[in-house]
Formats: sequence, C-alpha cells, structure tokens
Amino acid sequence: MLDEIVTVVKKCGDIILFADGAERNVSSKEGRANFVTKYDVAVQAYLEEELLKILPEAVFIGEEGEHSKAIGEGYAFIVDPIDGTTNFIKNYHRSCVSVGLALHGTMEIGVVYNPYSNEMFYAQRGKGAFLNGQLLHVSSNRLEEGLVCFGTSPYYAELIDQTFDLVKILHRASLDVRRSGSAALDLCDIASGRCELFFECRLSPWDYAAGSLIVQEAGGRISRMDGTGISLDKGCSVLAGGPAAWEDYFKLEGHMELA
Amino acid sequence: MLDEIVTVVKKCGDIILFADGAERNVSSKEGRANFVTKYDVAVQAYLEEELLKILPEAVFIGEEGEHSKAIGEGYAFIVDPIDGTTNFIKNYHRSCVSVGLALHGTMEIGVVYNPYSNEMFYAQRGKGAFLNGQLLHVSSNRLEEGLVCFGTSPYYAELIDQTFDLVKILHRASLDVRRSGSAALDLCDIASGRCELFFECRLSPWDYAAGSLIVQEAGGRISRMDGTGISLDKGCSVLAGGPAAWEDYFKLEGHMELA
Repeated sequence: MLDEIVTVVKKCGDIILFADGAERNVSSKEGRANFVTKYDVAVQAYLEEELLKILPEAVFIGEEGEHSKAIGEGYAFIVDPIDGTTNFIKNYHRSCVSVGLALHGTMEIGVVYNPYSNEMFYAQRGKGAFLNGQLLHVSSNRLEEGLVCFGTSPYYAELIDQTFDLVKILHRASLDVRRSGSAALDLCDIASGRCELFFECRLSPWDYAAGSLIVQEAGGRISRMDGTGISLDKGCSVLAGGPAAWEDYFKLEGHMELA
Repeated sequence: MLDEIVTVVKKCGDIILFADGAERNVSSKEGRANFVTKYDVAVQAYLEEELLKILPEAVFIGEEGEHSKAIGEGYAFIVDPIDGTTNFIKNYHRSCVSVGLALHGTMEIGVVYNPYSNEMFYAQRGKGAFLNGQLLHVSSNRLEEGLVCFGTSPYYAELIDQTFDLVKILHRASLDVRRSGSAALDLCDIASGRCELFFECRLSPWDYAAGSLIVQEAGGRISRMDGTGISLDKGCSVLAGGPAAWEDYFKLEGHMELA
C-alpha cells in the first residue's frame, strides 16, 4: 500500500513542478496570507480520486475540503495537496505534497514529496523512515549545536508576538534559525537530521499528519509545545526534534506551553 | 569572460554536491556560529587558481583568506567559496558559490551558483541578470503583498535584538518571512522575484558582491539599511528588494537605519 501511495504522490509532484507561472493565481483567500490556487484544488481532487481507489473505505480529509469529518474508527487519509502554497505562488521552490494515512486514530503511513528537489520522504509505522530509499535518523545534537526551523502560523495574527519572542529565545539558544514556509518539509528536515528542532504555535492536522510519523520513525520526538501528544482531529501547536534538542526546549527560560 | 567564470564556478558546485557527509567536519571556528570546513578552503583554493588564470592581474579577496587587500584600482575578484556554510555542514541543501568581479571599485560581473537546485544566476553590468539563460526581473509588488527574507548576522550576538525586532515589524507589514541561511541566494531570490525584500544587519562584501549586481541588473534596489550605497571594501548592512518593496521599507514605523 505504501508503494501505491508513493506512486500517486509522485504524480502530484509533476503537476506542481510543471504548473504554469501565469496560472499560479490565487483563486480565493480566507484570512491573513491564506491562499488557494487552482493547483491546490486540482491536486487534492486527483489525490482523493486515486487514494480512494487504493482504499475505498477510507475517510478523506484534505486542506481544501470540508473539515467536519471525524477520523475516529477505520482508515483516514489526511492530506495537504500543496503544503507551502505561498511559496508555490511566489515560485520560491519549497512546497510539497503531504499524505498521511491513519488507522483508528493512529498514523500508519506518512508520505511527503518535494518535487523541486525530487525528495520523497516516507514512513510506515514500525518500519523506519526513508528518503529516496535511504534510512533516515534524526540528529542527536543538543539544541546549542542545532538549527531551529520554525513556522509563523501566518493565518493567526494573534500569535505573532508569542512566535517571534520564542524565535529570539531559540536563536540565542542554538546556532541559528530557519524559516522555509512548509511545515511538512520542516518536519522532514528534522527526520533527516538537517535541523534539530521545529516549532509552530498553531498548525492543522494535514500540515503535520504525515510528517509526524516520519519524525517518529526516524527516532525523533513530536508533541504539542506543552509536551502532550499532538491531535489528528483538530489543529494544535507542534514541537518536533531530535530527542536531545526536544528535551532542551523544556529547559529554556521563556519556553511556551501552547496546547 | 563571464562564460569562463561560470564554467569555473560550476565545477566548484560539483565539489560541494559530492562532499562526503562524514567529511563535512568543522575544521575551525571563530566566534558565534562561524564555521569553516575543509571544503570552504578547498573551493577557495580552486577558485583562486582558476580565476587568476582568467585574469592574472586581478586582486583576489575571499572569505577564507586574509582580508586586508584593497579593492581600489583595477580588477578584483570578491569570492565566497561556500555561502551558507552552516547549511552545508547540516546538509540543509541551501548553499552556493559566489564570485563577483569589480573594476575600479564597481561591480562588473556577478555569478552565484546553487548546486543543489542546479541554478546558475549571473549578471554583467548593463547586460541584465539571468538564471540558467532566462532573463530575470524583480517583483513589482508592494511590501504588503511580498515575502521578506532576512539574515540573522549570526556571528554578531549584539545584533540579535535589532534583527528580530525588525523581523517582527516586517512580518506584520508583509505576507510572511523566510530565513534560508544564505545571503547570496536570498539576493538571487530577490532578483528572480521569488521574494520582495531582503535585509541583514551586517554582512561582509563576499556575501553580497556578486548578488548586488544580479539584483541591480534584474531591476532591483540594493543599499545599506540607511539607504546609502553598499561598500565593497568593508562590510555593511544590506537592504535589497523590488523597487516598490524597497521604498516601502523606509515608510515603516520602526525601520532601522544601520550603516
């Protein structure tokens, strides 16, 4: 089943990669910096059709659809057709397709594909995490020897002060910070040991469902910023990292405890 | 001459791309988050040898060498062998080779190569800026419709407060912020219209020499953060952008005037 999902996701990457610049228009906008293009909609429609062929009984939950469906019992796909839509619109070359599959509320498969770098990240519960066939492992560095990637929760202006206060604290506590504009790819950077810690004060399940399993299967930790488990039913804050850097976060003076 | 420089720079990209992970060790460290690997040294040695074959009379100024040479009269190469060294060490896939050529203190040629994406950015004074043969143009968006990329001046702890205060102001004034870890590539993102504004409170000439010409030849503005011209002799703050976003910076309440 993993192979079939990977094949479907790879095809979506081609749609993103060959999107016509002039056609990457914003078709609608809800709130601050929240864009949807015709490609988000087209990729999601393709994913829904193809993924439900693989697993017809699954619930399908995507960023661009209605969000009232429950994950609960049985299989559920949790999908972001283009994570990093602003990057996609700007041609910033840092976007991905993210497909998670949960069973009875637990992540079973996670697939994240960056078509610009042709990097396919994937994991299956209990079987490890991989990048293009290579086994992944998180960094064992402490925070002070680490890079911190962060998200700005751009749709939520009320989180700006908290976010940037924490960014400054983490910048002082680490080597430096990075902000790429794709939470799913940031989680894959954690899984591959390229960064030591990731945080974002509010995300939606489709942003982190697939990435959360990839991080865990690579030996990393993922939680809310108060240390409790993430939710797949509704959005929450996210803190992910190698075990050492993730632990160091809670020792910081000024760390936040967002649920 | 541009073609010859591009050929040399491309070969350096291969050295970076095929660097052995285990060998990307830090060979020395000066101050906060300031790393040098054997690859920085090897790429610079290769550049010095090959670029001086093209133009034997030129002064050669590189990040990894002595910095006392004057640019002044005649030709001067201003070189960063690996811009984004921390990214290179971490395998973050966002580093580049940056080669600028000045004549009598004015930039004549700029070449910046990202080997991970195989993107060769280059410009010659009066002849436009290009990415892999495609003419580049900066974004005409105002700041409020723009992405802001920034540098953290990671070697200078005394600039942290100013930097992150400004990041927060610019985040509120724009769509979102990005922090990639390579100033030279950020300048190329300005030139290609992927981002609207870039700032960093302190940089060295090899970080921005090549990129400054690429920005200008793509129709953009580059200056210090007080609006005066950048210096090639010694480091300074850098503000670059499409003309609209660059102007908008100076209208912001709380903008900084760093020289």
